[in-house]
Amino acid sequence: MRTFKIEVPDAGMRDAIQQKIDNLNKPKGSLGMLEDLALQVCLIQQTLTPSLAHPCHLLLGGDHGIEREGVSVSPREVTWQQMINFTRGGGGVNMFCRQHGFHLRVVDVGVDHDLSSVPGITDRKIARGTRNFLYEPAMTEDEFDQAIEVGASLVDDCIAEGCRVLCIGEMGIGNTSPSSIWMHLFCDIPLRECIGAGAGLDTPGIRHKYEVLSKAVENYGENQGDRSLILRQFGGFEMIAAIGAMLRAAECHLTVLVDGFIMTACALAATRLYPASQHYMIFTHSGDESGHRRMLDFLHARPLLTLGLRLGEGTGALCAFPIVDSAVRMINEMNNFDNAKITKYF
Amino acid sequence: MRTFKIEVPDAGMRDAIQQKIDNLNKPKGSLGMLEDLALQVCLIQQTLTPSLAHPCHLLLGGDHGIEREGVSVSPREVTWQQMINFTRGGGGVNMFCRQHGFHLRVVDVGVDHDLSSVPGITDRKIARGTRNFLYEPAMTEDEFDQAIEVGASLVDDCIAEGCRVLCIGEMGIGNTSPSSIWMHLFCDIPLRECIGAGAGLDTPGIRHKYEVLSKAVENYGENQGDRSLILRQFGGFEMIAAIGAMLRAAECHLTVLVDGFIMTACALAATRLYPASQHYMIFTHSGDESGHRRMLDFLHARPLLTLGLRLGEGTGALCAFPIVDSAVRMINEMNNFDNAKITKYF
Repeated sequence: MRTFKIEVPDAGMRDAIQQKIDNLNKPKGSLGMLEDLALQVCLIQQTLTPSLAHPCHLLLGGDHGIEREGVSVSPREVTWQQMINFTRGGGGVNMFCRQHGFHLRVVDVGVDHDLSSVPGITDRKIARGTRNFLYEPAMTEDEFDQAIEVGASLVDDCIAEGCRVLCIGEMGIGNTSPSSIWMHLFCDIPLRECIGAGAGLDTPGIRHKYEVLSKAVENYGENQGDRSLILRQFGGFEMIAAIGAMLRAAECHLTVLVDGFIMTACALAATRLYPASQHYMIFTHSGDESGHRRMLDFLHARPLLTLGLRLGEGTGALCAFPIVDSAVRMINEMNNFDNAKITKYF
Repeated sequence: MRTFKIEVPDAGMRDAIQQKIDNLNKPKGSLGMLEDLALQVCLIQQTLTPSLAHPCHLLLGGDHGIEREGVSVSPREVTWQQMINFTRGGGGVNMFCRQHGFHLRVVDVGVDHDLSSVPGITDRKIARGTRNFLYEPAMTEDEFDQAIEVGASLVDDCIAEGCRVLCIGEMGIGNTSPSSIWMHLFCDIPLRECIGAGAGLDTPGIRHKYEVLSKAVENYGENQGDRSLILRQFGGFEMIAAIGAMLRAAECHLTVLVDGFIMTACALAATRLYPASQHYMIFTHSGDESGHRRMLDFLHARPLLTLGLRLGEGTGALCAFPIVDSAVRMINEMNNFDNAKITKYF
């Protein structure tokens, strides 16, 4: 795996940024989390006048060998069907990208279907789905490295068109399973508490999922100390690419909006590899998936929204974008006490 | 006070709306609160294809006699200074109206300053501030009726330009005080638990505010059963106008986005007069003001955002608008399983 050079944003500007925020025409602190967000984006970009220009959304698709074990309510063909649907504009992610002016890139990183001739899908396929991690590592070391590169190079493409803020979403039937295992292994939370209903499992379905994942973790055995091994043992190609994208984005001082359960698991993984990468992440949504809130707590992250979304595709992150945009507009456009000629509030 | 004809939205379409939502291209229920919002707006508009056309924001300004008792951290001149500032585009409300395409109307309902020659401020002044309710009713019955009319007629103006969704904000130094008293009297919650820091009071300040408001409630005495008397005894002109606007909006099947503590108090008051009006309200934000959450609980309202905003001006409602917009886009734009050619999720 390549090395990323990820710095904690220089705090030298913090006082100047905070002073600018405090002198805006409002009671101090009265714009709450918008003020925190403005501070964070200013630090990321090392400026008093941040920009969210050219927002990009990476929709990464991949299939999962573990789906063969019946851990998901939907069959794997939904992955490729939805990928095609996204190119036609009718998915959840499409609506919200249009609403908020995001450039959507639909990328096949490892879907189990030939999508190479579908217009509107970027072909970066590594393999037709991962292997079944109940019996063997989901991917090889070489495939892992490739997936990291796919994510990083997609971010380079975004940067080339002037992108300063990135959302990442996923489409991959079965990908709550690796997410739950990563959460279990990285946060040291009992596996049972890391497993939820995914897109709609019933109670026997959840029990079966627990048994399968529990067995997979058992088979995996002694290697739990090696972080990148944990990632390639269980991860999906779309998830590893997301991690590569997050790390490259942090390296390039982009702001990353982290979506729900699966993307939070990827963010968790990214921060296990490079702790400083978390400074570049905004956690946008806490969904219904059991354990998501605990994973956010583990990261000391306070999500912007709790709307009960569990669609995936990055929809939670997209829905939260206008909040971050409001924060940036606040620090860029709001009058200060001097030019507003207002009796200063205390 | 005029009579409003406010109906509970006809539930005859509920099944058809829910069926449309359930057949959208996503696991059932997976867009969480967006699905609830879509249902509500469809019922309000009695349609399967709702619209949030021509969003309008009413920024209502008024001063409060009770401010003379030192219950607020800011002096009353901030009200008129801010009103002028709003016409120059540099306030919080301006940024967010620009961001979300709202037509902003800045309306003087009772500011203690001559603003009649200021371009961009609609002059509907009833008086230069209310009377001090520690000693006498804040307004006369006639003034109360006028304020209701101001609010209702402003909504008529919005409707005339095609408005289907309304935000209401306020600017009025001292207006957390009447809000706290209304909450106390309408929800039967001890006054002490209804009083917060407003825009930044310290602990002795809060104690003083409690003493003043407690005395005012005591002086007010035996009339607590008469709801409109409670309103005119303590209310501000901008608050009564907001109630008139909410009621007229409900009468005309507009969707109303209810902002923070003060606007929630106005919504509470509106629903005490016309319980059916609540069907037209979306509660957008739970702020820091002590007791706000309890008032929302009293109304069985689940706010969309908890960003710690306490600026007023309707900024919380504006920040929540894109969420409601996402819900409407979902039901209007998202593919269903038939046209998406997707294996139906369960």
